[in-house]
Amino acid sequence: MNTLMDMTTDLGVWLSNELAVVSGVMSDHLLNKHKEVNVVCGELAAYKGKMLRPSLLLLSWKAVSKEDTTPAAVQTAAAVVELIHLATLVHDDILDEADIRRGTQTLNSLRGNEAAVMLGDYLLSSAFHLCSTIKNPELNLLLGEVTNTLCAGELVQLSHRNNVDLDLESYIQIIRDKTASLIAASCEMGSMLGCNNDSFISVLKDFGNSVGTAFQIIDDLLDLLAKRKDIGKPAGRDLEKGKLTLPVIIMLAKNPSLRPDVRAAIANNDRAALHGLLKSTGSINAAFDVVGNLVDDAVSGVKNVLSNESSVQLCKLAEQLKRSF
Amino acid sequence: MNTLMDMTTDLGVWLSNELAVVSGVMSDHLLNKHKEVNVVCGELAAYKGKMLRPSLLLLSWKAVSKEDTTPAAVQTAAAVVELIHLATLVHDDILDEADIRRGTQTLNSLRGNEAAVMLGDYLLSSAFHLCSTIKNPELNLLLGEVTNTLCAGELVQLSHRNNVDLDLESYIQIIRDKTASLIAASCEMGSMLGCNNDSFISVLKDFGNSVGTAFQIIDDLLDLLAKRKDIGKPAGRDLEKGKLTLPVIIMLAKNPSLRPDVRAAIANNDRAALHGLLKSTGSINAAFDVVGNLVDDAVSGVKNVLSNESSVQLCKLAEQLKRSF
Repeated sequence: MNTLMDMTTDLGVWLSNELAVVSGVMSDHLLNKHKEVNVVCGELAAYKGKMLRPSLLLLSWKAVSKEDTTPAAVQTAAAVVELIHLATLVHDDILDEADIRRGTQTLNSLRGNEAAVMLGDYLLSSAFHLCSTIKNPELNLLLGEVTNTLCAGELVQLSHRNNVDLDLESYIQIIRDKTASLIAASCEMGSMLGCNNDSFISVLKDFGNSVGTAFQIIDDLLDLLAKRKDIGKPAGRDLEKGKLTLPVIIMLAKNPSLRPDVRAAIANNDRAALHGLLKSTGSINAAFDVVGNLVDDAVSGVKNVLSNESSVQLCKLAEQLKRSF
Repeated sequence: MNTLMDMTTDLGVWLSNELAVVSGVMSDHLLNKHKEVNVVCGELAAYKGKMLRPSLLLLSWKAVSKEDTTPAAVQTAAAVVELIHLATLVHDDILDEADIRRGTQTLNSLRGNEAAVMLGDYLLSSAFHLCSTIKNPELNLLLGEVTNTLCAGELVQLSHRNNVDLDLESYIQIIRDKTASLIAASCEMGSMLGCNNDSFISVLKDFGNSVGTAFQIIDDLLDLLAKRKDIGKPAGRDLEKGKLTLPVIIMLAKNPSLRPDVRAAIANNDRAALHGLLKSTGSINAAFDVVGNLVDDAVSGVKNVLSNESSVQLCKLAEQLKRSF
């Protein structure tokens, strides 16, 4: 959590306390009458990250709400989006055949794909159940739309494996669907629960969409450029799985003649060769420029309509993405 | 569908027409803006079965409702339970490493585990989204509880693989959770949408629980006794996966000294040896007796409080389970 923002400020202390409540809501809700289920859920501790989505939901709520006390519905919704995120991590690790996440063994490698499939389903189901306890049909509908979008994004991405003709527009659509949609929904839900102002809600949703898209591009860049020890999981997975990411797509759009070289790099899982091509064509910097533009859009959108401690903090979080390397 | 009941009666024609509407609701709802998703969903056609759960939901509604025209909410709820069932089939096939279902290739064998994981998630998500369109928070809560129960049942079952000490009570709990819960919920939802009479709703839910439990015992018996050509999928999977089922559990309860023999049959995947033990101890007939008792309970419960064409048909469907062999 501590890398997300300065937790010693008043807002930081507030967020920190709220996130502790959210964690409690999650573990209370996952508690099952069967000890066998609790044992498997216990291994999720290793999946706990910065709680970005609940943080964005809480800050979005605070940025538009006039209330001092956070309603239970907001804390519950924050737990819901994190449960959905955890479900996608557990199932993504099966998709990626990943053994390591955040420096520890993944659930699929510990307990086999079967338990990982079922645990992911249990998390997904628990998220929907928890959301239903809020008894706000609009939230349930929004959640269902978002999870449909997430899954569709993953299915489209799977169908484009090893496709060196994947264009920029399709790539952006895939990462919007599979990653940005839940981040956007977190901002949207938080603001929906905090006000009735459609312009605020729409601006925060757009903010989440831009930030989420930038976030996935950074994640893809880390997979391409980082070493295993820096990201707590093996790097180079995208290349191994034949997933084209932004710098490669930008490079091929400008230099179509490099397609055979990219195909060869994928076939041989040759990261060094791909790096060489990307560096010589300036494609990594070009991808960073896209991140910069997305962050600028996100920040200016929010600054146009909101100006308070929480909205400023949201903008700071977005700006951090520019300094990811 | 035609094996479920006589479709030439008035009630049969009604059910047949309603199921056609339900199928339409399902395919309309699964239709995605991305063609890649529709291609994967298209392969689900092979998973289409008798639509037992929507049929039970529709008949339960009709058994308690005074209306002539089926409300859209009932048809939608029927589509929801079938989508959940399809999701469990797709994910179960990954758990079972199954290549063949209903005589055709499974999704995991056609497109790999990755697409099967995501398609199952998409179906689960679509079911929740579709349920949310009914805007009845009670239904959403019930659905979330049921899917939690289903997943918990599967997780508990996974944890008992190769456990020759699994007792009768735990086995019954597992199959109630993983199979009967959704069948019970189908009857409960149908009756909830058709009346406010708690006694009718509770009787139909209990009916679903007993029928669902009997149904899973029969399914396990088929896996144990049938030949591949009879059930459209490889038989003997439970033994291969170290899953203890009812006849084995009954046999070991009466003859604890046979544990080493059962362990050996599992280790050597020796179906013939297991059959021999079960036959000589009368354990297969004992399992059929359990099915008979469950069906009798289900039928007498319904007959005590309801007496109309639909309730009679529900009882007939239950009685069919006794004649599965």
